[in-house]
Amino acid sequence: MDRIPILKLGNALLVTIQVDMHDQLATALEEDLTSRIVECNARGVLIDISALEIVDSFMGRMLDNIAAVSRILDADTVVVGMRPAVAITLVELGLSLNGVKTALNVDRGMALIRPQLIAGDDDGD
Amino acid sequence: MDRIPILKLGNALLVTIQVDMHDQLATALEEDLTSRIVECNARGVLIDISALEIVDSFMGRMLDNIAAVSRILDADTVVVGMRPAVAITLVELGLSLNGVKTALNVDRGMALIRPQLIAGDDDGD
Repeated sequence: MDRIPILKLGNALLVTIQVDMHDQLATALEEDLTSRIVECNARGVLIDISALEIVDSFMGRMLDNIAAVSRILDADTVVVGMRPAVAITLVELGLSLNGVKTALNVDRGMALIRPQLIAGDDDGD
Repeated sequence: MDRIPILKLGNALLVTIQVDMHDQLATALEEDLTSRIVECNARGVLIDISALEIVDSFMGRMLDNIAAVSRILDADTVVVGMRPAVAITLVELGLSLNGVKTALNVDRGMALIRPQLIAGDDDGD
């Protein structure tokens, strides 16, 4: 597989990571996500990692990168479905996932993004 | 990977198929979906196949099976994100996907499921 599909859910984008990420796949995902954020006018990115039993430092950095780029494009990043063992590993690796919000599942993740949408409507245009 | 993750989106379940399905994975997905439909009280199942470049007769039968079982459990099945080439192949294979609704993307698929939710609220409990 060359690309991880990015699904549009209202004003958010949803990515389900099911396979081990390698360099090229991670780069492709980051590029695709940034262009889709702009194209879809997305205010949030949900990354589901419920299929992952292991998150290594490479994956941690990828999540950090996605969150950093999304923030610049005014979109929140929410990592959903993290397994307890993965959370323990992340802390042991010293990866704090700064700037990445987390939620137990997609519904809660969407709820984290929605308030911002309403705030966005009030503020702007 | 042994399992394809099933995400709960409101009263619908979302499955993103990113890898080639083999017998065991398909059986596991069908079992997981049926138990999740009951557990989550789901009224719809969205199956995203935007990552698939090829849908063979095995996959066609799997979609048919999922739709048939879901229908018995009172949940609609909507296949979303089908590529044009896949649609052509399905017709050439003589797979009509009876009982499977299709939608261009997840948002439209959710819209297909939502009206039923309201109808369900009016009817029942």
